Amino acid sequence: MADVTARIARSAAAVESPLTDLAGFDDWFAEYGEKICTTAERVPLAALDQWYETPVTGDLRHRTGKFFTVHGLRVHDPTGAVHWWDQPIIDQPEVGILGILVKEFDGVPHFLMQAKAEPGNPGGLQLSPTVQATRSNYTGVHKGRPVPYLDYFRDTSRHRVIADVRQSEQGAWFYRKRNRNMVVETTTEVEVLEGFRWFTLGQLYLLLSRDDIVNMDARTVMACLPARSRPDGALHRTTDVLSWITGARSLAGVSTQRIALSGLDEWEHTDMGYSHESGGFFDVIGVSVTANGREVGGWRQAMIEPHGTGVIAFLMRRINGVEHVLVHARTEPGYADVVELAPTVQCVPESYRWLPSAARPRHLDEVLAAGPDRIRFEAVLSEEGGRFFHARNRYLIVDSDVPEDPGHPDYRWLSMDQLTGLLRHSHYLNVQARSLVACLRGLETARSAR
Amino acid sequence: MADVTARIARSAAAVESPLTDLAGFDDWFAEYGEKICTTAERVPLAALDQWYETPVTGDLRHRTGKFFTVHGLRVHDPTGAVHWWDQPIIDQPEVGILGILVKEFDGVPHFLMQAKAEPGNPGGLQLSPTVQATRSNYTGVHKGRPVPYLDYFRDTSRHRVIADVRQSEQGAWFYRKRNRNMVVETTTEVEVLEGFRWFTLGQLYLLLSRDDIVNMDARTVMACLPARSRPDGALHRTTDVLSWITGARSLAGVSTQRIALSGLDEWEHTDMGYSHESGGFFDVIGVSVTANGREVGGWRQAMIEPHGTGVIAFLMRRINGVEHVLVHARTEPGYADVVELAPTVQCVPESYRWLPSAARPRHLDEVLAAGPDRIRFEAVLSEEGGRFFHARNRYLIVDSDVPEDPGHPDYRWLSMDQLTGLLRHSHYLNVQARSLVACLRGLETARSAR
Repeated sequence: MADVTARIARSAAAVESPLTDLAGFDDWFAEYGEKICTTAERVPLAALDQWYETPVTGDLRHRTGKFFTVHGLRVHDPTGAVHWWDQPIIDQPEVGILGILVKEFDGVPHFLMQAKAEPGNPGGLQLSPTVQATRSNYTGVHKGRPVPYLDYFRDTSRHRVIADVRQSEQGAWFYRKRNRNMVVETTTEVEVLEGFRWFTLGQLYLLLSRDDIVNMDARTVMACLPARSRPDGALHRTTDVLSWITGARSLAGVSTQRIALSGLDEWEHTDMGYSHESGGFFDVIGVSVTANGREVGGWRQAMIEPHGTGVIAFLMRRINGVEHVLVHARTEPGYADVVELAPTVQCVPESYRWLPSAARPRHLDEVLAAGPDRIRFEAVLSEEGGRFFHARNRYLIVDSDVPEDPGHPDYRWLSMDQLTGLLRHSHYLNVQARSLVACLRGLETARSAR
Repeated sequence: MADVTARIARSAAAVESPLTDLAGFDDWFAEYGEKICTTAERVPLAALDQWYETPVTGDLRHRTGKFFTVHGLRVHDPTGAVHWWDQPIIDQPEVGILGILVKEFDGVPHFLMQAKAEPGNPGGLQLSPTVQATRSNYTGVHKGRPVPYLDYFRDTSRHRVIADVRQSEQGAWFYRKRNRNMVVETTTEVEVLEGFRWFTLGQLYLLLSRDDIVNMDARTVMACLPARSRPDGALHRTTDVLSWITGARSLAGVSTQRIALSGLDEWEHTDMGYSHESGGFFDVIGVSVTANGREVGGWRQAMIEPHGTGVIAFLMRRINGVEHVLVHARTEPGYADVVELAPTVQCVPESYRWLPSAARPRHLDEVLAAGPDRIRFEAVLSEEGGRFFHARNRYLIVDSDVPEDPGHPDYRWLSMDQLTGLLRHSHYLNVQARSLVACLRGLETARSAR
């Protein structure tokens, strides 16, 4: 493992590559984006030809029974700021594969990324993993072309697995969704198809610091990479961190109940979808997609469109000479296991207009007020574009002097090493925290490159 | 952590203690057992005063809505030997605490154990953890006395956490049951109540090798103790082990559906409970318990009574000079996460009379045929006596020369160190494997003491 970790660190330090010149990236991306442009427009739910509203419940389903279902969820959170609510939620029980293929060139591991158009992407193309496939994708329900490079991840016996762990996705929008995050290294000859390119990890970190280039699926896989272990110095023993998580999960009283989509309290149902009466949170919508260069030429589907741009931030500080971030043990109704570790702040500020002031997220004001001297990372990144329509968040890493005891039992300072250790296992860090871990690793790279 | 691990190893090596003389153990156990004897006899379900059969579904519930429910489960396992079956299952969503309190005497950590009578125990008393409490127990639904020593586990801030992890229980009988396995060390003064005693870990390992003394709850907590890490030498990289588990969990197609207890296919419902038409597997029964010295003087409750004594075994061999055991990635319908690592063999041999021969468990014949020169450990141990009536299994550790590639993708040789690492996290090792890990650690102790 030490060997793999050292080679990954070498790739992280490399921003030049004989295969890919970052100076030409924008031209390549723009040119290819024009060629495979995707447009998406809203249509009534009744116009989603392959989708139907189930009689009685109104649940949205695909005619094949595959892809995903949108149904209702009634949530009871006795310790939360809001004790009861109803919401639509996406149910997609199958485990997809998010996989990045790695191969060494001139002694430096390179990562094969795809420039991919997704209907929900705000700006068209984004860089995605080598493979980003639901089980419906690769078992042919999609009736499209086979997923390229999939075999590297379906049968790893002739390759080297660098990371392979199921992780959750947005627990506020997905009901127990898990994807398999994989990094696989090969020494075989790899044909580079149109739309794919090899990048060093250092190049990916540079691209990650720009708005809307590296997609969510790429970020979560990058976060699961092994990383160099530093000497001790974490504020809390790892046994105590695990005990804290066990306690939070044992005591969380949140419970959910599946209900009919048409039976949601406080949600309006129109021809165009579902919206919360307040105008906040998110809508369920139908979209018509026209695509060139994708598996099929066009399709219609249900999507979730959130309202407002979110703020997702880690507060960061040095303790005992070691960088720590302030994590939040957070409950979301769709988590497979009750509680996951989230960034210090994760919210859409404008949603709090409709919620009691006690619900205002801790540390949000500190993040919003941070001056440029405290902001170590800032970029607007979007969430998965296959199911979420223009879901954008401002990701930040902010220097802080919140004390070692942050004053609330749901928050704790963890070292980067502890996060890396937890990321070998499922369901400890939520998808937003994983995106920020990728950004944090990029910061370290930038610093050590200086 | 190194410090804790070394001190635990010291306790494991100690079979003498100034506090407890093992020579007097049997007398103490017999004497106390007479004093608090518990008797249990079968009664009709209708005679369970605080329990009722729910109209329409027949599901068995407690009048308070607490404790547990017995309902039906329809299981679909497209890759198993039997594709569809129905069964009763216990549903108890609350997370209980199984906790052992530790304190150092004369430089040796001692473990506070309780001699506890449970209605399902085949022989009366067994040694249980300091605390063995469902949430109903300790929130007072039981209307009994407060649970002694519970505060050490509910608020660990003034003590030292040695282990704290939620683990599953029998996935064939329990629907997603998890308990919190805790080991907490204190330096405060501890009053030793009647029925409790301090033991060294070495003493517990000696008692564990005798039939029906150390109960299941104690075994699973003991398995979660940290252990000395050995130099490398595992057959598979830990990254590959994790990838193997991720793959098994991603691909397992088992699905379950809750159904009415009265609607089970192939199960008979009589006044006395539920039985499978074949006479195999297990029954759901009612028992009337008369107890002295328990929280309440007597009660009636539903229980599960399995048929036949099971065989639970690890095959073991030395690879690269390091001890490995052959684990099985196993699906059970009640697991929270599809697949857990089980012993090489885990079955009730007589159940296979009613199943197709393709279902005959791999390696069972090797275990049954093993001569005394190959048997490293053997004892009949019983499963949790609060819900299971006379559930006994023959636990074995058997020397083997199964090759490094065991010839089936669901089996793999893992080193003891790898098991220890996995046991810091939830839901990797099933409860039967955890019992055997406790036995394995005992073997190591016996060997190093020689």
